[in-house]
Amino acid sequence: MENFSFYAPTYFAFGEGAELQAGELVKRFGGSRVLIHYGGGSVVRSGLLDRVKGSLEAAGLSWIELGGVKPNPRSGLVYEGIELCRREKVDFILAVGGGSTIDSSKAIAAGTVYDGDFWDFYEGKLVTEALPVGTILTIAAAGSEGSPDSVITKEEGMIKRGATGEAYRPKFSILNPALTKTLSAYQTACGVTDIIAHLYERYLTNTKNVETTDCMIEGLMQAMIHEGKKVMADLEDYDARANIMWAGMVGHNNCCGVGRTQDWTSHNIEHELSALYDCAHGAGLAVTMPAVFSYTMKQDVARFARVAVKVWGCQMDEEHPEKTAKEGIEALRSFLISIGMPKNFAELGAKEEDIPKLADVCCNGSAASDGKLHGFTTLEKSDVEAIYRMML
Amino acid sequence: MENFSFYAPTYFAFGEGAELQAGELVKRFGGSRVLIHYGGGSVVRSGLLDRVKGSLEAAGLSWIELGGVKPNPRSGLVYEGIELCRREKVDFILAVGGGSTIDSSKAIAAGTVYDGDFWDFYEGKLVTEALPVGTILTIAAAGSEGSPDSVITKEEGMIKRGATGEAYRPKFSILNPALTKTLSAYQTACGVTDIIAHLYERYLTNTKNVETTDCMIEGLMQAMIHEGKKVMADLEDYDARANIMWAGMVGHNNCCGVGRTQDWTSHNIEHELSALYDCAHGAGLAVTMPAVFSYTMKQDVARFARVAVKVWGCQMDEEHPEKTAKEGIEALRSFLISIGMPKNFAELGAKEEDIPKLADVCCNGSAASDGKLHGFTTLEKSDVEAIYRMML
Repeated sequence: MENFSFYAPTYFAFGEGAELQAGELVKRFGGSRVLIHYGGGSVVRSGLLDRVKGSLEAAGLSWIELGGVKPNPRSGLVYEGIELCRREKVDFILAVGGGSTIDSSKAIAAGTVYDGDFWDFYEGKLVTEALPVGTILTIAAAGSEGSPDSVITKEEGMIKRGATGEAYRPKFSILNPALTKTLSAYQTACGVTDIIAHLYERYLTNTKNVETTDCMIEGLMQAMIHEGKKVMADLEDYDARANIMWAGMVGHNNCCGVGRTQDWTSHNIEHELSALYDCAHGAGLAVTMPAVFSYTMKQDVARFARVAVKVWGCQMDEEHPEKTAKEGIEALRSFLISIGMPKNFAELGAKEEDIPKLADVCCNGSAASDGKLHGFTTLEKSDVEAIYRMML
Repeated sequence: MENFSFYAPTYFAFGEGAELQAGELVKRFGGSRVLIHYGGGSVVRSGLLDRVKGSLEAAGLSWIELGGVKPNPRSGLVYEGIELCRREKVDFILAVGGGSTIDSSKAIAAGTVYDGDFWDFYEGKLVTEALPVGTILTIAAAGSEGSPDSVITKEEGMIKRGATGEAYRPKFSILNPALTKTLSAYQTACGVTDIIAHLYERYLTNTKNVETTDCMIEGLMQAMIHEGKKVMADLEDYDARANIMWAGMVGHNNCCGVGRTQDWTSHNIEHELSALYDCAHGAGLAVTMPAVFSYTMKQDVARFARVAVKVWGCQMDEEHPEKTAKEGIEALRSFLISIGMPKNFAELGAKEEDIPKLADVCCNGSAASDGKLHGFTTLEKSDVEAIYRMML
């Protein structure tokens, strides 16, 4: 196991009605003048925004608001938010929405107190200072409610990049599974896929002897498959949504990823898809993961065979472990298709002719300053092109 | 799943040499005048105490020290520590040792800033204020390095009781697995047993549909069995000790226990044994758990059968699930014996004639103010007596 530090000081209020604690929690974590940041109409239509405002008011807090966050959140709105926060002397940002809204809030939080262009953080600069952020989560997927990460898309060139730093951990996150009941089957499945991807990206490691985190990840994968099936059968199933919501947080706050190298190849390759075609991140991952895993499987056949047996219930073929490993990848693909995810470029709205461009942007972003993708394996541009072609 | 809040804001520095960060971390979390609290000679003999003092000195911090913590830490030393902290105007307590030292430090931390008798907290009063505590862990077992809990034994009547409250979470914990290499096989096995007990006590729930935490616990149990065997085969195995150390923390900081009722019957029944006979807590648990589980199994045979299959590798007997459930309990018992743990009262140094007294104290402590033990099942004094008799 490698040396590490782990610090996850986010307060979680979990359960039905938890959003009514918003005002009290903002106060507890030092806020007085709040920016409520959110996306589209569902937060408004469902009455959630009004309940949140009522809670802030009851706590004697003042607020301003900024809506309009879109999936794959854009830098344009971040710049707008930064200006607003400075002008209005905001000292706390409350994100009401999913990963996109939380990520946009984090970017505004860092940009407001930073003397340069916030995009610097998305080109590799570590986030060490930011306004405090609280979240009220409405979709279990990104794990941003408990993580030090944020992903933003720059309109110019449609470049999607991540930033990280301990200052990005939310002070508190309100997790009410009932709020996710309004999500469509497709949105729900995208969330499930994203969470499973966060688990795989940590599972695929080159660090030896990390049994504790291996077993935690396998357990969380089993839970996601079980609860993913349940929620797709009944979108109103509170307990299934609660299990998925907690797995989404624990799976991405890194308690099961410490002390080991991680992968993130699938995320890097997917980011170019959702940036260019504006598809859902989870849908992009559903197409990307089986291709990436098939391509990189030979790096550690035993590991892929292990997850096939322990998580997907495959029978171990001791003589041909690569058969077992492949079976596991096929089981993942079948599961993702069964919950309604796309299986190829066509279903995703992606185009074959864009592949050279996709591979080029992917390999020349901040994630790979030497023109290669580094993770479970090192991939050259030609490898990334080959992986995109496997998705056709 | 039940509603819950979860807040675990402890900073973890994990790995070889991590103790050299002590001074910097005390400063980061606001300390200037430190009480170094520790137990016996091994912390001194190994040179650890000197390294810690060097780190505090390099950070420009002053300190005083208080050694002499014993396993099953006593209230007498706590009173002494409280007086010392008040007199010397200590503002930070640094525990260097195992669960006993950390628990003693927490009690001193709460008592120093409390106007009454610190024992009030061990009779049910919630801990809401305490001096900040940091830890340097030398044995993976109690999980106190990441938990809001503390257990102290009162000399008068040898009563062992627990206290809890968010103010008891350490500000930081330094986890260097190499520091645990000096532990004997017996001490190591006691730690492994304690960690497994923390997992079982969370697993035994009456809350339905908690798949995510169920699967996390099962994963952590699998890891503990795997790494427990490895460390007993080679006490110098760094990676095994690292895996056990992280499992000990994650298994007890409650991220896998939220949203569900928990048990704690085995801990309550064991506490009277280690209080009266001063045996190791882990050793007491090894004798207690199989008896308790055999007695309470009928409460949820399916759950015991599930853990038997998923964790202990038993074959499911669909027609007679109680057979599978029993097999799982026997597998646990065999495993504990195989790592050198005692199997009955005699090996523990406990006496049959004390049973009525043990059951009486157990059922009339703060854990059960109505004269019963409440957990996975409700146990009357006669049940507790019967369980003690199963350990003969």
